Amino acid sequence: MAIAKGYAATDASKPLTPFTFERREPNEDDVVIAVKYCGVCHSDIHQARNEWGGSKYPMVPGHEVAGLVTAVGSKVAKFKVGDRVGVGCFVNSCTTCATRDLEYEHYMPGLVQTYNDVEADGETPTYGGYSDSIVVKEGYVLSFPDNIPLDSGAPLLCAGITLYSPLRHWKAGPGKKVAIVGMGGLGHMGVKLAHAMGADVTVLSQTLSKKEDGFKLGANHYYATSDAETFKTLAGSFDLIINTVGTAIDWNAYLNLLKYDGSMVLVGVPEHAVPVHAFSLIPGRRSLSGSMIGSIKETQEMLDFCGEHNIVAEIEKINIQEINEAYERVLKSDVRYRFVIDIASLA
Amino acid sequence: MAIAKGYAATDASKPLTPFTFERREPNEDDVVIAVKYCGVCHSDIHQARNEWGGSKYPMVPGHEVAGLVTAVGSKVAKFKVGDRVGVGCFVNSCTTCATRDLEYEHYMPGLVQTYNDVEADGETPTYGGYSDSIVVKEGYVLSFPDNIPLDSGAPLLCAGITLYSPLRHWKAGPGKKVAIVGMGGLGHMGVKLAHAMGADVTVLSQTLSKKEDGFKLGANHYYATSDAETFKTLAGSFDLIINTVGTAIDWNAYLNLLKYDGSMVLVGVPEHAVPVHAFSLIPGRRSLSGSMIGSIKETQEMLDFCGEHNIVAEIEKINIQEINEAYERVLKSDVRYRFVIDIASLA
Repeated sequence: MAIAKGYAATDASKPLTPFTFERREPNEDDVVIAVKYCGVCHSDIHQARNEWGGSKYPMVPGHEVAGLVTAVGSKVAKFKVGDRVGVGCFVNSCTTCATRDLEYEHYMPGLVQTYNDVEADGETPTYGGYSDSIVVKEGYVLSFPDNIPLDSGAPLLCAGITLYSPLRHWKAGPGKKVAIVGMGGLGHMGVKLAHAMGADVTVLSQTLSKKEDGFKLGANHYYATSDAETFKTLAGSFDLIINTVGTAIDWNAYLNLLKYDGSMVLVGVPEHAVPVHAFSLIPGRRSLSGSMIGSIKETQEMLDFCGEHNIVAEIEKINIQEINEAYERVLKSDVRYRFVIDIASLA
Repeated sequence: MAIAKGYAATDASKPLTPFTFERREPNEDDVVIAVKYCGVCHSDIHQARNEWGGSKYPMVPGHEVAGLVTAVGSKVAKFKVGDRVGVGCFVNSCTTCATRDLEYEHYMPGLVQTYNDVEADGETPTYGGYSDSIVVKEGYVLSFPDNIPLDSGAPLLCAGITLYSPLRHWKAGPGKKVAIVGMGGLGHMGVKLAHAMGADVTVLSQTLSKKEDGFKLGANHYYATSDAETFKTLAGSFDLIINTVGTAIDWNAYLNLLKYDGSMVLVGVPEHAVPVHAFSLIPGRRSLSGSMIGSIKETQEMLDFCGEHNIVAEIEKINIQEINEAYERVLKSDVRYRFVIDIASLA
C-alpha cells in the first residue's frame, strides 16, 4: 500500500489538520492518480462538521479532484500514465446490483461516495481529494478535454455536473427562460452552462454586488431578491428555476415566478424542511423538484460540453494550509466563485 | 330576467338557507339550463365558510352541475332544447386575453368561476348549481354521453376532471404504478380513471375500511397509511402519486414512495403550508407538483372517456334541505363517495 498525505477532519468541531494514511493497493481495473487540484464544495463543510449526520472520522474531504495518471492496472484500457483525469462525487456505484445502471447510478443505494463512505467491501474507508493521491476504478474516472485546465476544471466535477444535469433534464435551451437562484460556486456555473445551452438566463441573487460578473458570465438579466419589487416584476416568468441556495429561503415566493408547467429544481440542501403551500403549485401546474449531481456518463458529457464551449469555473487558488479559513469564507459567500486547493502546497 | 330558487350561504358562519335571486338575461351565445343534479364538493365548504379567504355573500355554491337545456341564444350551434348538459368549475375564461387559450384557460387570471365570482363585466355575481337554473355561455357547457346518467355523472365535472387531468398529464397507463392517496370523493374517481387508463393502481387510505370498495372500483392494491409498515414496504414504488387529501399529512413520507423521476401531484389543498425537506426530492430527482381541474376541451374529453369506459361517480343522493348535514358528513369523510343534490327537492 502507498502512503498518502492529506488534510482531514478528526471530529465535527475541530479544524482540518495534516493527516497521513494508506491508499489501497490498486487492482487490475484501477487507476492511480497524482492529485494536482481539488475544489472546495460547500458539502465538504456540511460533512466535515456532521451537519447532515452520519459523518465518519477521520475524514479527508474533496470530490472535485483533478490530476495526472501515475499508474494503471493491467485491465485498464481507457487511461494511460500521464493522462489528465478527474474524479467526482463517487468512485463506485450499483455495488448491490447485478449490472451497473448507467443512467440512475448516482441515485441508487449502492453508490460509494468519494469520501465519508466505505468501499464496496463494506470496510475500507474512502478518502477524498484533499490529498496527494487517489486510487479509483477505471469506470469512475473522467477525462478532461485538452483545453480545460486542471485547476479551473476541477470544480466542474461537482458544481458543473450539479447544474448541467438539471439544465439538460428540464431542457434549458433556445426559447427557454431560466433563472439561477444564488450567484455562488454552483450558481455561477449555472449561468455559464445555461447561457452556452442557448437559454435566456436571469440571476436572482440577494444583492446586485455580483451583477457585473453575472453579465460577463452570460446572464441576460440580474435581479436582487432583497428587493420585493423583483417578485412582482418577474411573477410567472420562468420555465425553469434552479435554486442553488442551501439555506432556508421562501420557496413559495420563487414558485410564483414560474410559468404554467414550470419547475423549480433544488440543488442546494437547507438543513431543515421548508414550508410549501399547495397553492404555490396547483395554480399553473407547477413543480418543485430536486436533482443531485449526474451519472459518470453524463459527467463526461458535461466535461466534453465544457470543452466545446470553453467553460471552466471562476476560481481562487489556495494552499491547503488555508483550508479552514477558506471554509469560513465559503460560509460568508466571500469567494468568487470556487476555492481550489493547489495540492503542490502539501509537499 | 328569470327568477331562480336555490340555497345560499349568507356569511362564513351560518348554515345554508333558501335563497331567491335573478339569473341574467341570456345573450345570443348563452345556453339556459334547468339544473337537475348538483354534486357537493369539499371546496364548496371551504368557500361557503371563507376558509380560503375572499368569499362573496350571498353565495350559491355548486360546480358539478347537470341538467337539461331549456333555451338557447340565436347564435348557439352546439346545443338544442332538451340536451343533457353539464357545467363545471368555470363559466368563462381568458376574459382579459385577445383569444381564448384552450389548453391553459383554467390556470389563467381571466377565469370566471361558476360561483363566488363575478362575470366578465366585473359586476354581476356568479351563482352555482345549488339552484334550479343557470345561464352559461355555449363555450363553457359540456355534453354528457348518452350512457352517463345526470345524477352520478354530475361529480365528473369537478372530481372527475381533477383526477383525469393529472393522470393524463403524468401519463398514467400500462406499465405505470399509480398511487391514489385518500379514498374519498376525489380519490375514488382516481381509482376508476387510473384503472381504466391501464395503470397498476394502489390506494393509500388512512384505514382499510374501504378496501373492498377500492378493489371493486379497480384498485390492484390497498394499504393503510396508519400502519408505519406501509411506508417501508412501498418505499420507491410509484411512478405517480395523486394526493387528494386536503388536510396536512407528511408529504415527505409519501415522496419517499416515489421511484426515480416520480411525481407526487397535489389536488387537495391543506389550509396551511406543509414542511418539505430538500432531501425528499433530491435523491431520485423526484417532484412535488400541483394540478387544478382541466380546460373545457379536456373536460369534454374526460366525459367522453367516461362514456366509453362506463365510468360514473359513486353517489349518495340528498334533498337540498339536507345540505348542512351533508357538509358535516363530508368533513367526517362519512360519504361513499360523493353527495349529489336532487334539485327536484327545491320545488
